[in-house]
Amino acid sequence: MRAVDVIRAKRDGGDLTPAEIDTFVAGATTGSGWTDYQLSALLMAIVCRGMTAAETAHLTRAMADSGKRLDLSDVPGPKVDKHSTGGVGDKTSLVLGPLAAACGVVVPMMSGRGLGHTGGTLDKLESVPGFRVNLTEGEFRDALRTVGLGMIGQTADVAPADKKLYALRDVTGTVESIPLLTSSILSKKLAEGISGLVLDVKCGRGAFMKTRAAARMLSRSLVDVGTANGLTTTALITAMDAPLGRRVGNALEVVEAIETLKGRGPRDLTDLSVLLAAKMVVLAGLAVEAHEAVRKVRAALDSGAGLDVFRRCVEQQGGDPRVVDDYSRLPTAPRTTAVVAPRAGFVAEMTAGAVGVAGMVLGGGRERAEDAVDHAVGVVCRAKPGERVAAGETVYEVYYRTTSRMLAALPLLEESFTIADAPPAEQPLVLEEIG
Amino acid sequence: MRAVDVIRAKRDGGDLTPAEIDTFVAGATTGSGWTDYQLSALLMAIVCRGMTAAETAHLTRAMADSGKRLDLSDVPGPKVDKHSTGGVGDKTSLVLGPLAAACGVVVPMMSGRGLGHTGGTLDKLESVPGFRVNLTEGEFRDALRTVGLGMIGQTADVAPADKKLYALRDVTGTVESIPLLTSSILSKKLAEGISGLVLDVKCGRGAFMKTRAAARMLSRSLVDVGTANGLTTTALITAMDAPLGRRVGNALEVVEAIETLKGRGPRDLTDLSVLLAAKMVVLAGLAVEAHEAVRKVRAALDSGAGLDVFRRCVEQQGGDPRVVDDYSRLPTAPRTTAVVAPRAGFVAEMTAGAVGVAGMVLGGGRERAEDAVDHAVGVVCRAKPGERVAAGETVYEVYYRTTSRMLAALPLLEESFTIADAPPAEQPLVLEEIG
Repeated sequence: MRAVDVIRAKRDGGDLTPAEIDTFVAGATTGSGWTDYQLSALLMAIVCRGMTAAETAHLTRAMADSGKRLDLSDVPGPKVDKHSTGGVGDKTSLVLGPLAAACGVVVPMMSGRGLGHTGGTLDKLESVPGFRVNLTEGEFRDALRTVGLGMIGQTADVAPADKKLYALRDVTGTVESIPLLTSSILSKKLAEGISGLVLDVKCGRGAFMKTRAAARMLSRSLVDVGTANGLTTTALITAMDAPLGRRVGNALEVVEAIETLKGRGPRDLTDLSVLLAAKMVVLAGLAVEAHEAVRKVRAALDSGAGLDVFRRCVEQQGGDPRVVDDYSRLPTAPRTTAVVAPRAGFVAEMTAGAVGVAGMVLGGGRERAEDAVDHAVGVVCRAKPGERVAAGETVYEVYYRTTSRMLAALPLLEESFTIADAPPAEQPLVLEEIG
Repeated sequence: MRAVDVIRAKRDGGDLTPAEIDTFVAGATTGSGWTDYQLSALLMAIVCRGMTAAETAHLTRAMADSGKRLDLSDVPGPKVDKHSTGGVGDKTSLVLGPLAAACGVVVPMMSGRGLGHTGGTLDKLESVPGFRVNLTEGEFRDALRTVGLGMIGQTADVAPADKKLYALRDVTGTVESIPLLTSSILSKKLAEGISGLVLDVKCGRGAFMKTRAAARMLSRSLVDVGTANGLTTTALITAMDAPLGRRVGNALEVVEAIETLKGRGPRDLTDLSVLLAAKMVVLAGLAVEAHEAVRKVRAALDSGAGLDVFRRCVEQQGGDPRVVDDYSRLPTAPRTTAVVAPRAGFVAEMTAGAVGVAGMVLGGGRERAEDAVDHAVGVVCRAKPGERVAAGETVYEVYYRTTSRMLAALPLLEESFTIADAPPAEQPLVLEEIG
């Protein structure tokens, strides 16, 4: 089967057969029979012509099978994970992982690094001194057995076809495609050896999916394709207009996650973490009704059981568990400055995307995958939408290391919010549930 | 300007700016700023999203400007060329070039080689012993000055962007696109330094454009874009269901072209060659009315003036002019066999595409651009659609060199025609004129 014939079939709007998809994925994995320019031509044809749910399901399976798939059947307990499509200030993984594990869910979480305006769980974890995200498979199994939670990066042998295609997509304008997004996300999750998956599909100004319609399409595709591949899958579409919580930046977000596990977190982050953890508890079969699951998770939060799992997780993965009680052990930015409200009123709009880019510009995120990350810098939102501010009152506290980066970030932050005379209508956090 | 942003703009259905098109063409020419996989991603986006006439016109101009454009202003006389989109048995260039030149048109013809089921003028010419298609620019000018006709291959410095993109398109399923076909064809013609161009857009089973609608779209685009670039352009849509003339194969076609210039050619080839040459005469300003131009070309045919130009052209380009009177000086296949009519009746359908592939299989054409060509082999149609045959009478005479190739070609030929009890309705050769 020639690459050009597969490309032409999709270009003409046809459905690819499983054999055609297999040759494409094999080509992406080994380079055999497919050049990079042929891979990217097919990627663009998929962007333009789409794929059916059946094609996407097969593509996802083939990509998962392109590398090693963990078999966790010897680790007792139900394995469920969560995946977010990426937001600003989204540290829910650090909160709900421990909470779900405290409820008896085994959480084998493989995460990514931050890119562009969104942060990555691995970068946040690595701001804890000593924390190792590159566990061996044996160490990962040990963590799951003893703590019920392991938080690691994708190893090189997970879905190599996705690694290849993702790199090509980034530079060929072929990221924005429901079937390609779906297969990229789920191929890696299938490799985790889980039986259930909760998806947090972010929607809004700070998210990859700007509109409800787009978020719904992606959610539907993820749920259908996950289910078709034997994964019990639920998706929540959640608002990502303003940052989640108040803190954006790696170490700053770790502090906020710990505060949340101590019961003192911001309400949006707390509520979303509890809700997502409760979904995981249901998918794990540890509760039948949603309200029962929520009660269990709340109990794990209130009792400190979740915080305890977090502490043990840090210790298990080589990190310094004393950070839980002593935030000064985390990297701290040497300097701060403030962005203030130009007049009195209520914070109306706050653009998560702009805050995210400001965080990246400060050094806390990556423009390119090979960039290094400064764990200490970031932005704290002293006021959020709906909150009243006086003229000259601080809206953002900016944690920075170099003046030039701070000066580059300030205009973004100054333009990232508006002040109104009346408070904006309150927006729900969870917009829709699919699956 | 980043390649990925240009790709995304087209992917999203937008019109590319002249500057965006320029960076793409510069990338194709020099490799700078654009990788092959980015070029092919944009090519596929163009296939899927299309281009406006203005975009296509700019793309064409930029591709022509990517290399050397001949300036023939020092060669006296009106310069007009013809281009065919490729058919089976299409040796009109060898007939109309001399006829148009005999009428006073200067014909600076740069042709291509055969690929797939269609033949190429260069391969046909090279079956004449000694004929050189790689003239220097000086030699080409001399030929135009003294003979009024030069028939050469594209030099390496003509439209290098097209060479790069054409090679990529061939292997990435991005050949079939009106704007890409248009820019590829016309960029090379713009480089010839001509002021007028007659296009023969083949339509039918043996052509690249299978339907009248597709042929019309391509013709319209070619005429609009040619005109936008200062080229007076006319397109004829002509039938390519059965082979043109009776002979398919390089030396076989040279013989048929010479016979036609001697006034003994098959009617379809003669009529089409005269008509296209007459269009060139009109575009050259050497006749106002079509019928006047036809009369001039017929006179050049009847007087032998066209044949004389052909003879002088062969001599000028190093070929042996004695082939004109002694066909045994052309390469001859060592063996022949026949494909016969299975029953008596009229030849109904004859699929040019199948005859073309059979010619390629015999060794007369190329599957890949790097293949060598056997000038001697080919197929002679002893009967054509509408003609009566007895049971067992020869339909095709097959000229071959090796038995294995002959055996591979026979089934294609046997299935390439049908016999009916009544003659098929006669099809017009010229279907439409655009421009």
